[in-house]
Amino acid sequence: KNALESTLDDEDTFKILIATDVHLGYLEKNAIRGNDTYQTFEEILQCAKDKKVDFILLGGDLFHDNKPSRRSLHICTTLLRKYCMGDSPVTFNILSDQTTNFNTTQFPWVNYQDENLNISIPVFSIHGNHDDPTGAEGLCALDLLSAAGLVNHFGHSNSVERIEISPILMQKGNTKLALFGLGSIPDERLYRMFVNKQVSMLRPKEDQDDWFNLFTIHQNRSKHGPTNYIPEQFLDDFLDLVVWGHEHECLITPTRNEQQLFYVTQPGSSVATSLSPGEATKKHIGLLRVKGRKMNLQKIPLKTVRQFITQDVVLADYEDLFTPDTHQVTKKVEDLCYAKVTEMIEEAERERLGCPLTPEKPLIRLRVDYSGGFEAFSTSRFSQKFVDRVANPKDIIHFMRRREQKVDFKVAVEGLRVEDLVKQYFEAAEQKVQLSLLTEQGMGKAIQEFVDKDEKDAIEELIRYQLEKTQRHLQARGVTTEQDIDMEVGGFYQVIQIYLHDKKLFS
Amino acid sequence: KNALESTLDDEDTFKILIATDVHLGYLEKNAIRGNDTYQTFEEILQCAKDKKVDFILLGGDLFHDNKPSRRSLHICTTLLRKYCMGDSPVTFNILSDQTTNFNTTQFPWVNYQDENLNISIPVFSIHGNHDDPTGAEGLCALDLLSAAGLVNHFGHSNSVERIEISPILMQKGNTKLALFGLGSIPDERLYRMFVNKQVSMLRPKEDQDDWFNLFTIHQNRSKHGPTNYIPEQFLDDFLDLVVWGHEHECLITPTRNEQQLFYVTQPGSSVATSLSPGEATKKHIGLLRVKGRKMNLQKIPLKTVRQFITQDVVLADYEDLFTPDTHQVTKKVEDLCYAKVTEMIEEAERERLGCPLTPEKPLIRLRVDYSGGFEAFSTSRFSQKFVDRVANPKDIIHFMRRREQKVDFKVAVEGLRVEDLVKQYFEAAEQKVQLSLLTEQGMGKAIQEFVDKDEKDAIEELIRYQLEKTQRHLQARGVTTEQDIDMEVGGFYQVIQIYLHDKKLFS
Repeated sequence: KNALESTLDDEDTFKILIATDVHLGYLEKNAIRGNDTYQTFEEILQCAKDKKVDFILLGGDLFHDNKPSRRSLHICTTLLRKYCMGDSPVTFNILSDQTTNFNTTQFPWVNYQDENLNISIPVFSIHGNHDDPTGAEGLCALDLLSAAGLVNHFGHSNSVERIEISPILMQKGNTKLALFGLGSIPDERLYRMFVNKQVSMLRPKEDQDDWFNLFTIHQNRSKHGPTNYIPEQFLDDFLDLVVWGHEHECLITPTRNEQQLFYVTQPGSSVATSLSPGEATKKHIGLLRVKGRKMNLQKIPLKTVRQFITQDVVLADYEDLFTPDTHQVTKKVEDLCYAKVTEMIEEAERERLGCPLTPEKPLIRLRVDYSGGFEAFSTSRFSQKFVDRVANPKDIIHFMRRREQKVDFKVAVEGLRVEDLVKQYFEAAEQKVQLSLLTEQGMGKAIQEFVDKDEKDAIEELIRYQLEKTQRHLQARGVTTEQDIDMEVGGFYQVIQIYLHDKKLFS
Repeated sequence: KNALESTLDDEDTFKILIATDVHLGYLEKNAIRGNDTYQTFEEILQCAKDKKVDFILLGGDLFHDNKPSRRSLHICTTLLRKYCMGDSPVTFNILSDQTTNFNTTQFPWVNYQDENLNISIPVFSIHGNHDDPTGAEGLCALDLLSAAGLVNHFGHSNSVERIEISPILMQKGNTKLALFGLGSIPDERLYRMFVNKQVSMLRPKEDQDDWFNLFTIHQNRSKHGPTNYIPEQFLDDFLDLVVWGHEHECLITPTRNEQQLFYVTQPGSSVATSLSPGEATKKHIGLLRVKGRKMNLQKIPLKTVRQFITQDVVLADYEDLFTPDTHQVTKKVEDLCYAKVTEMIEEAERERLGCPLTPEKPLIRLRVDYSGGFEAFSTSRFSQKFVDRVANPKDIIHFMRRREQKVDFKVAVEGLRVEDLVKQYFEAAEQKVQLSLLTEQGMGKAIQEFVDKDEKDAIEELIRYQLEKTQRHLQARGVTTEQDIDMEVGGFYQVIQIYLHDKKLFS
């Protein structure tokens, strides 16, 4: 069960390219960064082709938007057809019941075994939280690719009561690989299900010890709240390797969980979708070799990823140069920041030497702690100076005070704020209006779908459903229903407004 | 050049299934009619398979929405993969330059010649006005299917200056077929381009008389305004047959244009998207046979199409029964309508006998001319009586006065009203504000994109573009720019509000 230092590419060795959180379409309308995600996805596919892998394993969030733009779908379809179709034979077999493994299309079999498609590199993917299933049909963006035979979408659970994860059982020569997957589920719900023993992983009955057990998951790995993540020890200890998606920091070198005795690799996103320090870690994908029960994971640096350099500066540390009372202190602070940013740009330029595939303008973020009586300077003038050298001139500088450091930017963006707002709203509303009408949970879900997934009908549907359900109840209690409902709905839309406004500040 | 009464299905005969305006996704959220378009598309594909056609030719509007829902794309992809892939060989060749014919993907060749796809029935389609290209990339919904290799999208012109239509030159045995196509273009623009000699059809240089020339177009055929349609005589007289899409009435039997000496077939939509009399004509698709220069078109009735029966009643004609002064006249009118509707439902039931594929509840429309002093009755109560027997209980009755008959319902829905509103707005605004700023034409286009095609950025982009372009100009003239612009933009959004409100009344 230990990592194998090196292994031959023989007929018993699975070669698997692992990547996650490609976020196709992220900032696609940005004049500078618009093509970043597409170029990196092409690099990943090219790499899979060059390395002659058996298959590609994606850990979710292939698309940034739940409803990807036409351009995004078009480019993705084109790239998959270009790189994953062709005459190279696929030399592993599938032993499990494919109708169980692939249950989201009318073609419940792996694409490379379809007699009408000539697939050279099968792609296996779970869905992430960005591209998860929605609507009455429970379809996600990946299912469009699945229906066209370009991707094998697996790890989709149809039940909300209990989850049974049936592995795709693969065999190449003498190596047996059980590929488990679980598409993204809201962390708190999944946490609860684990606690209630509603999640089970099915193992092949025979020769259990011969299988290498690989699991792909797309959840919070770091603790965002008491039950708002999935602790590694929730996962079965018969696993050999977990490919953990969703977390954007590249921590691809497998780390051993000493309690469960399995390894975890966190490939990280292939694009920075925020300017937080975790995204500044150099981006990699992995070439995983599995032979028998042994494995080796080779890190492959991505060349097309835009550089991102971030640094913190605490103004109070520069008392030799200035204090809040110094004459023209703001000018001096600005000069310091100018020097720092210039330094970071030059660092990026040096690093980029000899890397023609790397985009020219780096992402730069200087976090300025101005606590202790300093004042923020105008960043719009500052931005102007770097407009030709930096990909994000408008938000290079981020002013903060010490206490602000505790605000987890990512949590805010990932949607917790919506829940907070809904919670606040209900706490305030509870005291004045009849509230059995619209439940907090239902509303939170509807608002989330509305803003995150462009599900225009989500709110209307919820309200209609709840109205019908509770109207009799309310009437029995003598509430002047219509007025209260109007207040309710009106207030709810205000929450949306606040949220949308709020979201603008972050994106 | 005459229609051939019958022809053998020999190795020299092209068999082509022609259909148009399938409008996938139309009313897909309707509990009763939600699957109608999908079922009929499946019937069309099944028919193509049963008849062993060489290819399917679609005349545009395969999708009802410019941005089809995920469900719509998923079902369409699934059906195409299911019916159009397989081992039956395709036995005709393509002689033209395919990079010219198929110019919207990175795979500029016909799908059945792609070595990675096993296509049994190639589909050739132009785009319609509902599913036309939008956005900076000029992509349409069909292009997603093209990229996946499921459809051959042709007839896409990249130039707005001039259109050159290069045919797909096909040969089967001794028969040579030149397939011309032109995707939908706003009628008035195309009309102007024809008048200005900016449209040309390219013919093969050699053996011109050996080719059967087939043209597919998706435009207004009936005159909606002086230049708001395409007169048949605009089309080249070397054509043999024109397949005319967009018009929903099934007039599939080829009619001869005596001036141009070609035939025109208008297959009509395979679903009724309005309750106008034209949609009540029995729906058909066509099996076109072409051998040498001879052709034969066989009408094939569609079995899955929901029945639609419409009738007019003029209350003033019933003076034996009642006049506006009769006691309880409204009740009597309602009774008359009830009898008429019951009669129509029974007619539908008789017709449906022995047609298990036809949906059970028919569409019923009774147009009631109540001019001459009658009053309309409440249709909500009336609807209730038919809720179990009719697919459209809420709009069975349509009250009108004689003058109303002139209002072309279809024109209103198809978008002319937007233009009218924009025009009105500008006429009013012209007198008070500086108006070189935002041109009527540009705005009309932007608003149309916004409301019809869900192009959320269209208006913002236009305004930004126009602002930049004219700001200097206005400043030079001493206009207090910002305020005027605000008025402009504010007023414009009001127009949208009016339009959206207005649209609700129709849909």
